Amino acid sequence: MSQLLRVQNFTVSQDGFGAGEHQSLERPFGTADPGAMFAWAGATASWPNRTEPGGGRGLDDYFTRDFSRNIGAEIMGSNKFSPHRGPWKDHGWRGWWGEEPPFHTPVFVLTHHTRPSFTLADTTFHFIDADPAAALALAREAADGKDVRLGGGAATIRSFLDAGLVDTLHVAVSPVSIGAGSRLWKSPQELDDRFHHEVVPSPSGVAHHLFWRR
Amino acid sequence: MSQLLRVQNFTVSQDGFGAGEHQSLERPFGTADPGAMFAWAGATASWPNRTEPGGGRGLDDYFTRDFSRNIGAEIMGSNKFSPHRGPWKDHGWRGWWGEEPPFHTPVFVLTHHTRPSFTLADTTFHFIDADPAAALALAREAADGKDVRLGGGAATIRSFLDAGLVDTLHVAVSPVSIGAGSRLWKSPQELDDRFHHEVVPSPSGVAHHLFWRR
Repeated sequence: MSQLLRVQNFTVSQDGFGAGEHQSLERPFGTADPGAMFAWAGATASWPNRTEPGGGRGLDDYFTRDFSRNIGAEIMGSNKFSPHRGPWKDHGWRGWWGEEPPFHTPVFVLTHHTRPSFTLADTTFHFIDADPAAALALAREAADGKDVRLGGGAATIRSFLDAGLVDTLHVAVSPVSIGAGSRLWKSPQELDDRFHHEVVPSPSGVAHHLFWRR
Repeated sequence: MSQLLRVQNFTVSQDGFGAGEHQSLERPFGTADPGAMFAWAGATASWPNRTEPGGGRGLDDYFTRDFSRNIGAEIMGSNKFSPHRGPWKDHGWRGWWGEEPPFHTPVFVLTHHTRPSFTLADTTFHFIDADPAAALALAREAADGKDVRLGGGAATIRSFLDAGLVDTLHVAVSPVSIGAGSRLWKSPQELDDRFHHEVVPSPSGVAHHLFWRR
């Protein structure tokens, strides 16, 4: 297990949703409020999207600062990449992240609607129509010996969990409820048969759930 | 504050000691039992001295895996380097860590008894007779833009704290008592006037105390 598949800083509501319903260009997380969901991460010194100095260096910062450590590639679902559904009308959409995406590695977007790869700064997006095992094999090869991050969303993480491919999983459970949307789990205990599981409450109000293979 | 001075994974007893009395070649931590003190770290997958696969990937592993992230140099006290006291009789002693020390950077040993620098694998030890501010200036220059780790022991950390030079401090309080020795603090709350302070209990039994400058 020299190249891990890692889920990191994936944030869900208390009721187990990674995003609400009705994702759109204006609302990447649908009915969920990303400000409330991700407040814990945005307050840290090492938040990748931080534009101003400052931020806390307590427990939560250990999670945000670990985001890029030894990561050589990311896999994400198509809904993390884009609010569009179905075939591409054009290739103008290049992700939510502007000209300098926070990934800095190859990114493999799982989609039935492939399109040409493109590069923004030091992130290259590839579009592949592949099952989890085949996607992971591609990402591992691109990661050049480093680990692979599984970026979400919830349905994508579930498909890799169901295929038994996830090595470590960090989920931050945020003190908000969404009610409906993209579900990661009904209860974190669902995974306890296959993973060690620690729960670490943070002063910020989230509970960090840490899983690693038994 | 682009180059932080960081204390990481420094482990003390419940009664505030980093080591017991009577350090010797056979007992680097004197009367303290390092097996009990450092059990939390040794059980993690990312423990730098780990020689076999395995180990936990829960909370404690976030601390051991952060040991080398963005560190460009270490400063340590002479008692961390060696059990000898007073002038060197010869230069045969090259540290406790064998031919591949876990630092992988320049290391500055604070001592009134300087000796020539030497290199083991990718770690070079320098011996300097300097006050904390001067030592930090040297280490920052050697760190090439990265942070500097302050490695201990307790008296060395105290001297940098008293000089106001420490930016972040992670201390693991282990559930053992030593009674006497090298004291870091009487109570962690001593630092609360100058630092933010979070306490994070770990399932392993230690309590991680995280401090960063106010």
